[in-house]
Amino acid sequence: MATEISSLGEFGLIDRLTRDFPLVNESSVLGVGDDAAIISVPADKEALVTTDLLLEGIHFDVRYVPLMHLGYKAAVVNFSDVYAMNGEPKQITVSIGVSSRFTVEHIDAIYAGIKLACEAYGVDLVGGDTSASVTGLVISVTCLGEVEKGKAVRRSGAKETNLICVSGDLGAAYMGLQLLERENQVAAQSGDPDFQPNFAGKEYILQRQLRPEARKDIVERLRAAGVTPTAMMDVSDGLSSELLHICKASGVGCRVYEDRIPIDYQTAIMAEELNMNLVTAAMNGGEDYELLFTVPLTDKDKVEHMEGVRMIGYITAPSLGAALVTRDGGELPIRAQGWNAFTPGEDTAARAAAEGAETNAGEAPADAPAQGEEK
Amino acid sequence: MATEISSLGEFGLIDRLTRDFPLVNESSVLGVGDDAAIISVPADKEALVTTDLLLEGIHFDVRYVPLMHLGYKAAVVNFSDVYAMNGEPKQITVSIGVSSRFTVEHIDAIYAGIKLACEAYGVDLVGGDTSASVTGLVISVTCLGEVEKGKAVRRSGAKETNLICVSGDLGAAYMGLQLLERENQVAAQSGDPDFQPNFAGKEYILQRQLRPEARKDIVERLRAAGVTPTAMMDVSDGLSSELLHICKASGVGCRVYEDRIPIDYQTAIMAEELNMNLVTAAMNGGEDYELLFTVPLTDKDKVEHMEGVRMIGYITAPSLGAALVTRDGGELPIRAQGWNAFTPGEDTAARAAAEGAETNAGEAPADAPAQGEEK
Repeated sequence: MATEISSLGEFGLIDRLTRDFPLVNESSVLGVGDDAAIISVPADKEALVTTDLLLEGIHFDVRYVPLMHLGYKAAVVNFSDVYAMNGEPKQITVSIGVSSRFTVEHIDAIYAGIKLACEAYGVDLVGGDTSASVTGLVISVTCLGEVEKGKAVRRSGAKETNLICVSGDLGAAYMGLQLLERENQVAAQSGDPDFQPNFAGKEYILQRQLRPEARKDIVERLRAAGVTPTAMMDVSDGLSSELLHICKASGVGCRVYEDRIPIDYQTAIMAEELNMNLVTAAMNGGEDYELLFTVPLTDKDKVEHMEGVRMIGYITAPSLGAALVTRDGGELPIRAQGWNAFTPGEDTAARAAAEGAETNAGEAPADAPAQGEEK
Repeated sequence: MATEISSLGEFGLIDRLTRDFPLVNESSVLGVGDDAAIISVPADKEALVTTDLLLEGIHFDVRYVPLMHLGYKAAVVNFSDVYAMNGEPKQITVSIGVSSRFTVEHIDAIYAGIKLACEAYGVDLVGGDTSASVTGLVISVTCLGEVEKGKAVRRSGAKETNLICVSGDLGAAYMGLQLLERENQVAAQSGDPDFQPNFAGKEYILQRQLRPEARKDIVERLRAAGVTPTAMMDVSDGLSSELLHICKASGVGCRVYEDRIPIDYQTAIMAEELNMNLVTAAMNGGEDYELLFTVPLTDKDKVEHMEGVRMIGYITAPSLGAALVTRDGGELPIRAQGWNAFTPGEDTAARAAAEGAETNAGEAPADAPAQGEEK
């Protein structure tokens, strides 16, 4: 089926896209359909607000990102930002700009993904905007969340001797992207319209790229254990970049141990296949949506054996700078090598910050700013 | 000066753009610079959230919209949505996608306009996202506001016998756009790079198009007079479209008097120059950002002579439908003829819903959905 968007018109499209989104949160007083949504924030809570802009050709490639996954991811990356403040996501607004090569069914698929994400995380769609676009697909998501008054965890609270922890594992989403790009290239070269990409044994890294999850579980686990991080953020641009953010915002330095960086087996296999440096990929790959946080040394016993959490280093005096302690005991200064959203057309190259990448990693500037950073 | 954006990098750009935005509202606990902003909503207030997506080539044309005005307008149209709920705008997030033909100075100009708007309306910039765009300029603004608990005015509260009021005058922004397009065409045809457009005596309609204001004053005036509208919305897609929204949401009909529609002298002159039907332009032009609201008949004395407010008709039983009462006492059914944001490339034609327009108004479908509608 291919229904032209213009056959529905904007209001018809909005009705179609939003009718399957019942409001589940008490705080969502009024959702879609008026000049603004009404949100009731409980008296003992503060509101959180975060936003992400996703642009075709910069942040995603519809040739190998299924639209439902794209919708899911667009929502989840915003939820991740709210969890990274120690909050709970409650509402989102979704604005989309769609060019004429997209049909109503395409947009349905994006919203099906958004709906799945909203259901999984208990979030209400309360508003947005739809428009034609003369060029590519544009998705802008804003997420509202709640946090207990005064309990939001910022990037700026890390203190000397704090332990640095990270959830899950790193570098997998980046390797998933490499895989997708490789198979896409092979498909193009084969000229076979029925070409089937080979993803066997690589399901995890693929899922990490296409359908990331936000670490709601980690925030809940920390809360249950009575641990309040001193600083926290999510890993969207790569561990290196995020460590530097926390160090800068907190006015501290850090030491992170190479052999403590959590890396999945599939990530390692893929890096080997592509002849990439594994640790560099894990440090700089980005899009992991894991939580990076610091806790007081006194919480060591609580986080040391916490499921899904790895202690990877500690906070130092600012004068010591930020460094990776290598396996041989040496120290490498940590530099942000996330991909630069301001070098359009080179995003793949810039992403390939991993040393020895077969793509032209050398083009990534040493201190390249990274994608999707909140202002 | 022309500074390439890539020379600053994303974080450098964000720092530059946001450093001149001090937080002025007590409710803005934490602004730009973390995973999310923190907003403290007073216990006796509810939060409002609204968002607008502006795309180059659909919503604006950089050939004749100065970037500072664009920034101002992008912010103000969101403030207008918050006022239309009987609220006060407090915070915005601004996401922009910029293609490589824009320089840092261009983006500076957009943010200068946003800053002016924020200062004029007492709003804080608390977050956003910046990215490269492989195509045109993308601006996504989300606005948070406050309203006293239970005092938000929706579209759905209009009751039979209620008076219909509108602020300011209508059709001017639309005529301003016609003027800009005409002068742009003349400039192109002249081939003279130093061509000076002729805007003499047309400053008002130009300002209405390029630098609209949100009707904060009307909301305050109503409050001071003790008038709470039963329904309210802002006029962004044209009076016809908005009347139908209120009728549909409230389950009512309406009668609006042609000779009561407020129209400025410059709007009338321009319509005559372009051989357009003035009332149709005023009913369907859009982008007025005036407030359309209904009040109980008992408030007639209070609104009848209120500065900047005109009573234009009344709410009827739903069975009577929505109609314009013409000067000769006849009735014309009201149809939404705002421009269709889903016919890219035809936006100018579709906007020209005014009958007899010299542009090809005939192409605008009779029930074309309109621009910028909140979901």
